[in-house]
Amino acid sequence: MTQPHSFFPIREEGGAVLILDQTELPHRRVERELADLEAAAHAIRSMQVRGAPLIGATAAWGLALAMARDPSDSGLNSALALLGGTRPTAVNLRWALERLKAVLLPLSPSSRAEAARSEARKVCLEDEAANRAIGQHGLKFITDIAGGKAGAVRVMTHCNAGALATVAWGTALAPVYAAKQAGVPVHVWVSETRPRNQGLLTAWEMREAGIPHTYMADNAAAHLIGHGQVDLVIVGADRIAANGDVANKVGTCLKALACREWGVPFHVAAPSSTLDWHCPNGAGIPIEERSGDEVRRVAGAEGAVTIIPEDSPVANPAFDVTPARMVTAIITERGAVAPDRLSDLYPERKP
Amino acid sequence: MTQPHSFFPIREEGGAVLILDQTELPHRRVERELADLEAAAHAIRSMQVRGAPLIGATAAWGLALAMARDPSDSGLNSALALLGGTRPTAVNLRWALERLKAVLLPLSPSSRAEAARSEARKVCLEDEAANRAIGQHGLKFITDIAGGKAGAVRVMTHCNAGALATVAWGTALAPVYAAKQAGVPVHVWVSETRPRNQGLLTAWEMREAGIPHTYMADNAAAHLIGHGQVDLVIVGADRIAANGDVANKVGTCLKALACREWGVPFHVAAPSSTLDWHCPNGAGIPIEERSGDEVRRVAGAEGAVTIIPEDSPVANPAFDVTPARMVTAIITERGAVAPDRLSDLYPERKP
Repeated sequence: MTQPHSFFPIREEGGAVLILDQTELPHRRVERELADLEAAAHAIRSMQVRGAPLIGATAAWGLALAMARDPSDSGLNSALALLGGTRPTAVNLRWALERLKAVLLPLSPSSRAEAARSEARKVCLEDEAANRAIGQHGLKFITDIAGGKAGAVRVMTHCNAGALATVAWGTALAPVYAAKQAGVPVHVWVSETRPRNQGLLTAWEMREAGIPHTYMADNAAAHLIGHGQVDLVIVGADRIAANGDVANKVGTCLKALACREWGVPFHVAAPSSTLDWHCPNGAGIPIEERSGDEVRRVAGAEGAVTIIPEDSPVANPAFDVTPARMVTAIITERGAVAPDRLSDLYPERKP
Repeated sequence: MTQPHSFFPIREEGGAVLILDQTELPHRRVERELADLEAAAHAIRSMQVRGAPLIGATAAWGLALAMARDPSDSGLNSALALLGGTRPTAVNLRWALERLKAVLLPLSPSSRAEAARSEARKVCLEDEAANRAIGQHGLKFITDIAGGKAGAVRVMTHCNAGALATVAWGTALAPVYAAKQAGVPVHVWVSETRPRNQGLLTAWEMREAGIPHTYMADNAAAHLIGHGQVDLVIVGADRIAANGDVANKVGTCLKALACREWGVPFHVAAPSSTLDWHCPNGAGIPIEERSGDEVRRVAGAEGAVTIIPEDSPVANPAFDVTPARMVTAIITERGAVAPDRLSDLYPERKP
């Protein structure tokens, strides 16, 4: 099945690694080359690329770029340290780095550059395949609802867990793209996602794909969910603990609370690379505190403006943890299960 | 007790009615004269004044201005209709208009102008007194918590239900001002309150009063409440139904859901003028849908910028209803009670 979108969040062209700079979207479409390791680390830290799977893929490419310059053990270790310290919450970063480390460490330095590049390509291809499978598993939830009602199935999401958060297809939005391709009518509630307004990225994707959508302030979630305006919520994840607790963009848990109150399904879509089997529950997931300037200033088409005067302090936790008890199903490339049955999908993880 | 703040949201000076234009705050402090009925209606509709009690007070003054120009029955009725149609949710608007109508209708037109002005003054004085009493009743919740812990009592609020939402003192923030005056250490979590960012008004008030506070994105509420960073939540209300269901600024219910989940008290502070005994429950409260441009554009110190391209539609419900079951106590000038005991405070309303 062809990709449902006309852009590439990260791609290789003639030996160069190119990213779509998401800090410029939706107002400008700018592709940038990741020239070296430092550019890759900067892209992750500054959120030119964001979304857990795309962070993992970019880290893999960052390591490949590092190996092209210094494939020694010390070059490898310092690249792992630099990339590993860029962002703390999305476990896909650690997953990708450990995966490449396991491949590269046994090799002689002279063969690491090509091996790293090859493994980065595999990470990307697997992410695309996993997300396509997530789309098909999630599509069942949408078609089940479509069969019982007139009009479009109304999906609410939070942040951007679309193609822009991954290599292709997205996680939470993969079922939406799959529904569009299958001819099942869908409508997407796009939540703004303050402070960084990643809802703009979701709205941009939906416009590009011609999928009907409506933008809303995050605050409107309980009103819409409580008034029967939402058939299901699907979000992505930055890390899922072994018990099914889900770290995702801050504000996610508020939507889960409203869903549980009014009996609306709340699904989490993520590839296996987002599962952290070493983390027994959400309390062990580090929550990144980002700069208050993200809240203080807002970017628009005309530039950025300051909304909060400097003399008011600002808190900016970037993620929250939604307890497993509020999650209806977790959708991975292997299927969809209740959070407490997650290990059933991964029998190899059982003790 | 003197007012705890150095500004007047609405005041009379030498026969003129002056408002602090809240669309200019926090970046500029601009007072405007309400020259006539139309200016009063515009001030309410455009949210130069906002907050349920202040909407009521401004409507009372608007009627007084109308009577100065045309005190006939038709002048009275058309002024009531114009003001009554400005905003649908805050019941204080209807309350103030009905109160003045009951005073003015029996009078001869020649005495209506002075009577309206006198009644508008009474509405303002009573609002100030009610809010001062709310402050004292709410203070008990804060001092109770202060007695059992070290450090400041951490109050989270939503929107602005401070002095700027009333004639003086505020509703949700009246207990905070009372705590400050009583020497009880408080810290206020100021929620941004997208789309119109009334958190900026709360932060401005807190800066003016020298009360410690931290600004946060609305999305951070579950993370902070779930991590023991909040001792209690106090919000205002635009309308409280007879069963204790509370309409307030959109996003309020999300905070109530988080409070209930993690056992944090969720209080609603409002004067009696916000109680709608004709409305049996929240389903009967009209929820204003405002222009999508409020979400689409954001104002900052340097001007406004467009964040959402025109080709994405926007929904903008301005309020939500928090079911009574999620409310710990309703605080009015008569005291604080569980929502299902509201009528105990108002025995005259019992059938």
